[in-house]
Amino acid sequence: MNGAEALVHSLLDAGVDTCFANPGTSEMHFVAALDRIAGMRCVLGLFEGVVTGAADGYYRLADRPAATLLHLGPGLANGLANLHNAKKAHSGIVNVVGEHATAHLELDAPLTSDVEGVARPMSHWVHTVESVDKVANAGRAAVSAASARPGQIASLILPADKAWSEFGDAPAAQGAVMTAAPDAVDAESVLSIAKTLRSSGKSTLLLLGGPAVREGAAQWAGRIAAATGCAVMCEFYAERISRGAGRFPLPRLPYSVDAAVQKLAAFEHIVLVGAMPPVAFFAYPNKPGRLYSPGTNLHRLAHRGNDVEGALRMLAEATDATRTAFVTPSRRQAADTEGPLTPASIGALLATLIPENAVVVDEAVSTGRGFDGVTHDAAPHEWLTTMGGSIGYALPVAVGAAIAAPERKVVALVGDGSAMYTLQALWTMAREGLDVTTVIFANRTYQILRGEFANVGAGEPGARATDMLTIDRPALDWVSLARGHGVGATRVTNLAEFAAAMRSSLASGGPSLIEVIL
Amino acid sequence: MNGAEALVHSLLDAGVDTCFANPGTSEMHFVAALDRIAGMRCVLGLFEGVVTGAADGYYRLADRPAATLLHLGPGLANGLANLHNAKKAHSGIVNVVGEHATAHLELDAPLTSDVEGVARPMSHWVHTVESVDKVANAGRAAVSAASARPGQIASLILPADKAWSEFGDAPAAQGAVMTAAPDAVDAESVLSIAKTLRSSGKSTLLLLGGPAVREGAAQWAGRIAAATGCAVMCEFYAERISRGAGRFPLPRLPYSVDAAVQKLAAFEHIVLVGAMPPVAFFAYPNKPGRLYSPGTNLHRLAHRGNDVEGALRMLAEATDATRTAFVTPSRRQAADTEGPLTPASIGALLATLIPENAVVVDEAVSTGRGFDGVTHDAAPHEWLTTMGGSIGYALPVAVGAAIAAPERKVVALVGDGSAMYTLQALWTMAREGLDVTTVIFANRTYQILRGEFANVGAGEPGARATDMLTIDRPALDWVSLARGHGVGATRVTNLAEFAAAMRSSLASGGPSLIEVIL
Repeated sequence: MNGAEALVHSLLDAGVDTCFANPGTSEMHFVAALDRIAGMRCVLGLFEGVVTGAADGYYRLADRPAATLLHLGPGLANGLANLHNAKKAHSGIVNVVGEHATAHLELDAPLTSDVEGVARPMSHWVHTVESVDKVANAGRAAVSAASARPGQIASLILPADKAWSEFGDAPAAQGAVMTAAPDAVDAESVLSIAKTLRSSGKSTLLLLGGPAVREGAAQWAGRIAAATGCAVMCEFYAERISRGAGRFPLPRLPYSVDAAVQKLAAFEHIVLVGAMPPVAFFAYPNKPGRLYSPGTNLHRLAHRGNDVEGALRMLAEATDATRTAFVTPSRRQAADTEGPLTPASIGALLATLIPENAVVVDEAVSTGRGFDGVTHDAAPHEWLTTMGGSIGYALPVAVGAAIAAPERKVVALVGDGSAMYTLQALWTMAREGLDVTTVIFANRTYQILRGEFANVGAGEPGARATDMLTIDRPALDWVSLARGHGVGATRVTNLAEFAAAMRSSLASGGPSLIEVIL
Repeated sequence: MNGAEALVHSLLDAGVDTCFANPGTSEMHFVAALDRIAGMRCVLGLFEGVVTGAADGYYRLADRPAATLLHLGPGLANGLANLHNAKKAHSGIVNVVGEHATAHLELDAPLTSDVEGVARPMSHWVHTVESVDKVANAGRAAVSAASARPGQIASLILPADKAWSEFGDAPAAQGAVMTAAPDAVDAESVLSIAKTLRSSGKSTLLLLGGPAVREGAAQWAGRIAAATGCAVMCEFYAERISRGAGRFPLPRLPYSVDAAVQKLAAFEHIVLVGAMPPVAFFAYPNKPGRLYSPGTNLHRLAHRGNDVEGALRMLAEATDATRTAFVTPSRRQAADTEGPLTPASIGALLATLIPENAVVVDEAVSTGRGFDGVTHDAAPHEWLTTMGGSIGYALPVAVGAAIAAPERKVVALVGDGSAMYTLQALWTMAREGLDVTTVIFANRTYQILRGEFANVGAGEPGARATDMLTIDRPALDWVSLARGHGVGATRVTNLAEFAAAMRSSLASGGPSLIEVIL
């Protein structure tokens, strides 16, 4: 057995059985090991940002890490932006990054770089394997790090000679993978927050984030709100919100600083449940960075790493809310299917079309800003948003979600500007026959930047600035781009065409793309 | 005047008048400054790897740095792989990287990351601007760092508040930009090498790299070889080789370890002229990393940062070779235009089709391995290869070369696997109307990895390994991919079609793509 084989065994033993890969020469022994060891599903991406984003999407649906296989420093670098997004989403990922054979490093060959240095900014855990007999344990340790709650980015750097060297019998990795049971919260602080809710329910906001917006946790928040009169919201960004008819509806904190500040000003108390103290996405001249007023009392019920659902249940018990009923939306039955394509008409139609148990991956940016409000009464579904804000996350995350949950339909809602960063994900969808409907909103502009240009006080863009904000010269042709990657596609210019294309795509069971001309 | 305007003035004053950009919110004041300050050509890319690769290509043709404009840590991260390539090519680049306003950093907003940490592995110089009054000098210092010989990657991090803050009168940046005159070499070592050449010319190799393979320098090597009987070769990789009819032909050191070792074994002395001691690209079990035998005497005539052409002229003087004639190839007149497409037939045809003064950007990888040998008698042209080995360099470098040298035709020769990493470059070619002919060699496999799989001793790939090495399921459709980006395209399946498509594309004066089915 060689080091690469030991690593594959180690990953499999620790429960990692899916690997998103874009390998190179130094990873060939890992690839060869796949032939000799059954059980590792290896999914090829044509660009590393697809690979790392897919691992993020996989974790969000599977609640356990996948591996990635990346080639040296530059291959890892290409995956960093979506590792940043995954890190901020607290998705656990085991990156296996090849490195030159150790003796080769001093020769400064062309591909030599500081791989640990590249890994560090977007990783919680970085380790270079020192000898072939330590490969198995290093693999085990990487899975442990990635499996922590909340999840972590673990980057395991494997020099080629450690992969190809042989070493007698197969060594079992020593020590168990850290189990991922989250810590319970402190009972005293639950009681203190319960007291606040009883005395000041109507001026208290439960702000939910992370695991608190999953169905099991959020229903406790619904009961508490019904019993105490408190408000409930979730952070603007969430790695996975359970939404739709029959579920407690979670309004999102607005993205706009002014709107968010206004919303939060109504509350004397904000109770953070897996959420961070709410802050602005960007800084703007003469606007606050913190969205809550200085006089607000912040309470923390639970960190992300805590047993958030358990904490909410404890709070429901302490507020006598465990059996209190809450109001949920009924499933929307109809929406206009005639007329022009507007964000509002598209959103309303989506509310009738999102299939039950679907995974919606939302990177619709400016077009989709209002989808949230109009799709709360769709069939029950999971809604995924970016957590790190680096655009180009949605198509790769859709790949990973579809691999992790083949029984669900995946709908990716993506702006044309965003989709261009990682469009190669379409090829992996075609290759793996993934049940993903990709909707590209083609406004042919970095529309969000037009708003931000004004927000940061830069005034009205002139000709040269406008040139940096528009992508209509030439117009991208998404039907051709999709077909080039092996994915069938349709272009729609009105609501009726969009409805027909969505129904057809959702019925197909495989990947397809709809270009929505706005 | 605000900080962003001061930076644009500072860059322009220091001679940087081209900026490849993919901006975001924190860069909006820089974009706004473009409206108010004339003279900065800003070229939009839809992915940051296009932006940084274009800056590399620009430097290779212009011999002076361009700027890039990148959005925070993740935007910079997306550009790192081509910054790696540019760093190894010693291309000078000034990266302007936006950062959150300083007060916003402690809030840990979604896009917060360690921007300096991201920059460091692929930069020679990293600096975060501390206050608005220091912006202009920081810009000047960044251009100085990038303009060193050899060129450097300078990453200037500009917090948004330093960009938007106002500060009275326009401050002139203080201190001159470092001029880039390279150092002369030591006369003693020139004389010592001349002595070796006179006594052991036939067993001596001049190994040229970097600036030594440009026309002005290489002709002195030709004279020295003719006078002393020494051999001349260049490194396998070179950022810009002057080649073709009427120029001294420079055979490249082979990529294959065995072939390179065999070639070099013939020499007692290797004189390094802007070149590195020759090493293998990758390490392989039971093969040497150094390509020269331990008994070889290595002499260094000049480092890359030296006046390499001057050093060769001094060596020519010391060997009485300044007027010695050398043999150059005559221009090839004809090649087969009928028959199947093979690397050899394509290469021979290219030798007749490469236009005079063209820039050939070579990322043809396995298909193009032999193009070198058969195109030495094409019309005089410049040949650019990857220097860092991270694939996805060619299309962006072609963009930058075409921007820097609009009077030249650019021909990008790219493998299908490589081209997929940065295909968004096609859109910038269309937008800017660049005179670039892109030839995609569609073998639908990571062919080089099939060879490397055997080289590293992994044996024959089985089904699962083969799946990671082939990209034919589904086949990419490059004609559709090009059209999707606004670039016209043709698919060719035999030599006659290829010849016709090349002639038509080269005559068009704008961008087009030819998919060569192998």
